[in-house]
Amino acid sequence: MPLNCTQKLIKSHLVSGEMIPGSEIALKIDQTLTQDATGTMVMLELEALGLDIAKTEASAQYVDHNLVQTDSKNADDHLFLQSASKRFGLYYSKPGNGVSHPVHMQRLAKPGKTLLGSDSHTCANGSMGMLAMGAGGLDVALAIAGEPFYLRMPEVWGIKLTGELQEWVSAKDVILELLRRHDVTGGVGRVIEYYGPGLEHLSAMDRHVIANMGAELGATSSVFPSDGEIKRYLIEQGREDDWSELKADEGATYDIHEEINLSEVVPLIAKPTSPGNVVPVSEIAGTPIYQSYIGSSANPGYHDFAIAAEIVKGKQVADGVSLDINPTSRQMLTDLLQEGHIASFIQAGGRLHQAGCNGCIGMGQAPATGRNSLRTTPRNFPGRSGTIEDSVFLSGTETAAASALTGVITDPRTLGPKAPRVKEVKNPTIDLNLLDAPLPVEEARKVVIQKGPNIASIPAMDEMPDNLQVPILLKMGDNISTDEILAGGSRVLPYRSNLPEISKFAFENVDKTYYERGMVSVEHGGHAIVAGINYGQGSSREHAALAPRYLGLRVALVKDFARIHWQNLVNFGILPITFVDEKDYDKLHQGAILEFSNLRSKIQEGNEFEIKIGETKEFIKVRHALTSRQVDVVLKGGMINWVRDQQQPVK
Amino acid sequence: MPLNCTQKLIKSHLVSGEMIPGSEIALKIDQTLTQDATGTMVMLELEALGLDIAKTEASAQYVDHNLVQTDSKNADDHLFLQSASKRFGLYYSKPGNGVSHPVHMQRLAKPGKTLLGSDSHTCANGSMGMLAMGAGGLDVALAIAGEPFYLRMPEVWGIKLTGELQEWVSAKDVILELLRRHDVTGGVGRVIEYYGPGLEHLSAMDRHVIANMGAELGATSSVFPSDGEIKRYLIEQGREDDWSELKADEGATYDIHEEINLSEVVPLIAKPTSPGNVVPVSEIAGTPIYQSYIGSSANPGYHDFAIAAEIVKGKQVADGVSLDINPTSRQMLTDLLQEGHIASFIQAGGRLHQAGCNGCIGMGQAPATGRNSLRTTPRNFPGRSGTIEDSVFLSGTETAAASALTGVITDPRTLGPKAPRVKEVKNPTIDLNLLDAPLPVEEARKVVIQKGPNIASIPAMDEMPDNLQVPILLKMGDNISTDEILAGGSRVLPYRSNLPEISKFAFENVDKTYYERGMVSVEHGGHAIVAGINYGQGSSREHAALAPRYLGLRVALVKDFARIHWQNLVNFGILPITFVDEKDYDKLHQGAILEFSNLRSKIQEGNEFEIKIGETKEFIKVRHALTSRQVDVVLKGGMINWVRDQQQPVK
Repeated sequence: MPLNCTQKLIKSHLVSGEMIPGSEIALKIDQTLTQDATGTMVMLELEALGLDIAKTEASAQYVDHNLVQTDSKNADDHLFLQSASKRFGLYYSKPGNGVSHPVHMQRLAKPGKTLLGSDSHTCANGSMGMLAMGAGGLDVALAIAGEPFYLRMPEVWGIKLTGELQEWVSAKDVILELLRRHDVTGGVGRVIEYYGPGLEHLSAMDRHVIANMGAELGATSSVFPSDGEIKRYLIEQGREDDWSELKADEGATYDIHEEINLSEVVPLIAKPTSPGNVVPVSEIAGTPIYQSYIGSSANPGYHDFAIAAEIVKGKQVADGVSLDINPTSRQMLTDLLQEGHIASFIQAGGRLHQAGCNGCIGMGQAPATGRNSLRTTPRNFPGRSGTIEDSVFLSGTETAAASALTGVITDPRTLGPKAPRVKEVKNPTIDLNLLDAPLPVEEARKVVIQKGPNIASIPAMDEMPDNLQVPILLKMGDNISTDEILAGGSRVLPYRSNLPEISKFAFENVDKTYYERGMVSVEHGGHAIVAGINYGQGSSREHAALAPRYLGLRVALVKDFARIHWQNLVNFGILPITFVDEKDYDKLHQGAILEFSNLRSKIQEGNEFEIKIGETKEFIKVRHALTSRQVDVVLKGGMINWVRDQQQPVK
Repeated sequence: MPLNCTQKLIKSHLVSGEMIPGSEIALKIDQTLTQDATGTMVMLELEALGLDIAKTEASAQYVDHNLVQTDSKNADDHLFLQSASKRFGLYYSKPGNGVSHPVHMQRLAKPGKTLLGSDSHTCANGSMGMLAMGAGGLDVALAIAGEPFYLRMPEVWGIKLTGELQEWVSAKDVILELLRRHDVTGGVGRVIEYYGPGLEHLSAMDRHVIANMGAELGATSSVFPSDGEIKRYLIEQGREDDWSELKADEGATYDIHEEINLSEVVPLIAKPTSPGNVVPVSEIAGTPIYQSYIGSSANPGYHDFAIAAEIVKGKQVADGVSLDINPTSRQMLTDLLQEGHIASFIQAGGRLHQAGCNGCIGMGQAPATGRNSLRTTPRNFPGRSGTIEDSVFLSGTETAAASALTGVITDPRTLGPKAPRVKEVKNPTIDLNLLDAPLPVEEARKVVIQKGPNIASIPAMDEMPDNLQVPILLKMGDNISTDEILAGGSRVLPYRSNLPEISKFAFENVDKTYYERGMVSVEHGGHAIVAGINYGQGSSREHAALAPRYLGLRVALVKDFARIHWQNLVNFGILPITFVDEKDYDKLHQGAILEFSNLRSKIQEGNEFEIKIGETKEFIKVRHALTSRQVDVVLKGGMINWVRDQQQPVK
């Protein structure tokens, strides 16, 4: 049977399961990626698992999220991550080297391989003909330890690209077009595979931009073929030997079909407060902005910055506008410096920040109260910018640069018929210092891991009881993101390696009393939460499962789950269940007691079972989507217990 | 009588008083400088004073301290400061334009003028033949409103420079040499005036480096003549017309004499935790460092960065060292970009930050726990870096760059006999966008000041009662800095325009219970504090007086005061007194009650009076150094009340 690229990648890594959409499969993981915000916990997990040396082909630890050191915590974490990388045989990328995804693409990405990362935008490296997936930190820890990654076989959504992008339109507009059509849940359970003649005009980095925000559609991953352009890119990186071809077989088919004619794509913009809230820029042109923010994992390429620099060159930003430039890798920053683009930004009044994630995850660059911020970042969930009740718009860098000059949202096509030409870099930099290579095994074993005072072990977790009577501490609506479950930002992220401390922030933007009520619930058998559709969308941070678990969360009953968060719930022993009849959602209110009897046998015996609403004595039907392996994990109280009970098989 | 430069500057600006060291004089102020951390309060004060348009020749508001926007507060302040600058007819320098002192030097500094700034390093512009002084924010607000500045006529400390700096030694080592000789109180009550043949080899920016850290000696100011080098500098800035000569008269004398032979100065370094703790770099060479930090107001010049860039060019920073580059003005950053120096830093592994104060005042770049940080900043008071129990060393940029490569404190002379040559910039940038010019008066009057939700009015303050019975809430030792009275850093500074909030941090590193005990004291007539010598050294921040005042502080009884903080205490109606017999310090303990009877008449009638220690009934003699005008200010409860009672004479 002819296979598409996604199927080829899966087939060549299949450890167990059948390639039938929806059934559980296990995949061998070749490479992993961790960043600092999630990585400290991964390192603590590797330690808890008793790992000696990483069993993957290449695992890299990046420091890109927590670069603003206002006290010793972040600096301590950097040293912890560096020493843990040395100890476990990982590559290490120090602060200032850049955002994990583009750096990984430059130095490690390899067509035909699988990549698992503890960052929801890991899918960006799907640009390289890889199967690149975001996952919870514990999944990545297990992958580093040589365990396969379990997921449901996705449907493959083929998107045929035809035509060619017009002046002032770029790759970012392509993925915004897909979000315009399908919103933030359109990709759930699917891998998006791009093919067709339109690919010819999309560079490796353009594909990276498109693959990155597949995460915003909820997709399992995005896959591009590995063709001549990928070969060219790897030659440019001095890594020709890492290239191999990946293309769909003649006659390969897709589970879902769609086409985008690139010639018809116009400059697009996502309005607050969802990446799916997309309209043409022209529709809201004239809206005043306080900030224009250029960079982030969603526009990390040389061309993304260079065209913006050419647009502002020799001009000044509008009065009162903060133009924030966030380079994405040291290697690319070197090229931008060499070609004079950084000078153009600075002379125009821009503020240059160190290479990294920065304001994209609320670490700096938060907008003023009641003002609009225009960003080239991937997300505009409420509060993610660091400002409460923020108003963040998402666009490509052409729109952001044009708007910086005018002070209002501006369709870049109004600047003239022709966009500026960006000259190719004459001698593109290859920065081999972006990654410290793993130490030889004997040296690695001698390394002492350095833990600052803010790094705390993971507390022990109990098994799932057979009978539960738990109150609903929160009843929430649709599309609750992990930013709302546990915020990012400078107040919260520094405690990511300190569970008792970080738990104080859980659900604080939903209900400030949750933490205290949660702590009380721990003494009385825990609690449940109820929510609508797409629960847990957004960032992959596992703390969004771990912190509520620490506060007594045993059951999450929702209309449906976002994939990565669902996996995190399982990993930490929280039972994720959905309504058989969504109307039952209306029967539940905050404070009601949910009664589960003979829970352990019930979830082992079938996927559907009944639970009692304590107050009304009414029964409602719920469903779990766990495999028998996952049932076992939840009953054991989570993956760490499960692996430990298997007598540390990963050693 | 032949006059020195300082005397000429004072004489030409004398409004009242006699030029006898120690007696109060009032000076006309030509220019003012405010930065954002202190400036928001100054703008609130201008509003409280009912100011229409600034009465100075030039007043500039810079945004350089609070650039890290992790929530809306800092961004809101920037917009507030911009709108207030427009309203009151001030120049405005937006975030990313750089540190106030070098930007002021580039665009506004003018020989022969007086400059008053709400930043303790305002003295840096003494390099330009100005009398440039740091003061409390309220003093600066009054100066903007046309009021003279009151101070005690300083002694003039003549420092004759001979010889020429050797390879690897620079201006920073000259001021460190002075600190080595005289420690942090050596300049109290003095203006340091530099003269002699050694000046010939010191550029305008070298002089700026030296003048800047006169603040660390406690000096009122530092003054350099305006000679051919200053003319050259102003021509380079496109401001030849702003030049005028300032030189000491033939036969002029100084109150104190000293000589520094520049040829004998060696690379120096201040050890933790005082800028006065200076030794030769060679003495502590080999000490491991976590961080090398280049930039800040104490090394803001092109040459300071360029030589460091040449040292690291083509090399890599040592494993585990964070090399943080903090440019100091947009104009200079443009030159550094043009000449390839920023690229050298980036390629060597440096982390480039936006132009501003950044980590110098704890806004980012805090070092890891228990690690050494080597910085080219002016101060290393405990905790100023943002890390509790930090270990900060201060040096010039040659030492910092050399140490970044080796990972240990390194005497740059060990790199070879010749330091790298720094080529002069071919076409130095003149960035006229560094300052937004004041609006025409009619337009200014139409501007509405924009106040974010975190900007609160100053509460009303009561008069000084005639009888006080107040407990000593804190008894402290010597050299308590304003960083210890009210810390800077990212937790504290965002509340600088919100007195009730910022007061929660008062003395927190001295005694965490102070805030609560202070709030209780407010209900019972307030409290006193007791301390040793040099009380209130360091930063000029007036919040260090305002916050304790809000918490009930009425009397500060110490061995002696740092000048600016003493002035701030007076401005906010706190009685500053010293022991007549320092041994009485030992008779007081925390919790003892101090009894002041007929206080109002006693401090009006003389400088010495007795107070009773409640417990032992013993009397001790204390002294105040207030003029009759200042007595009046303290009795009225502070300067705002005093000016208001004079029926807003500043209008």
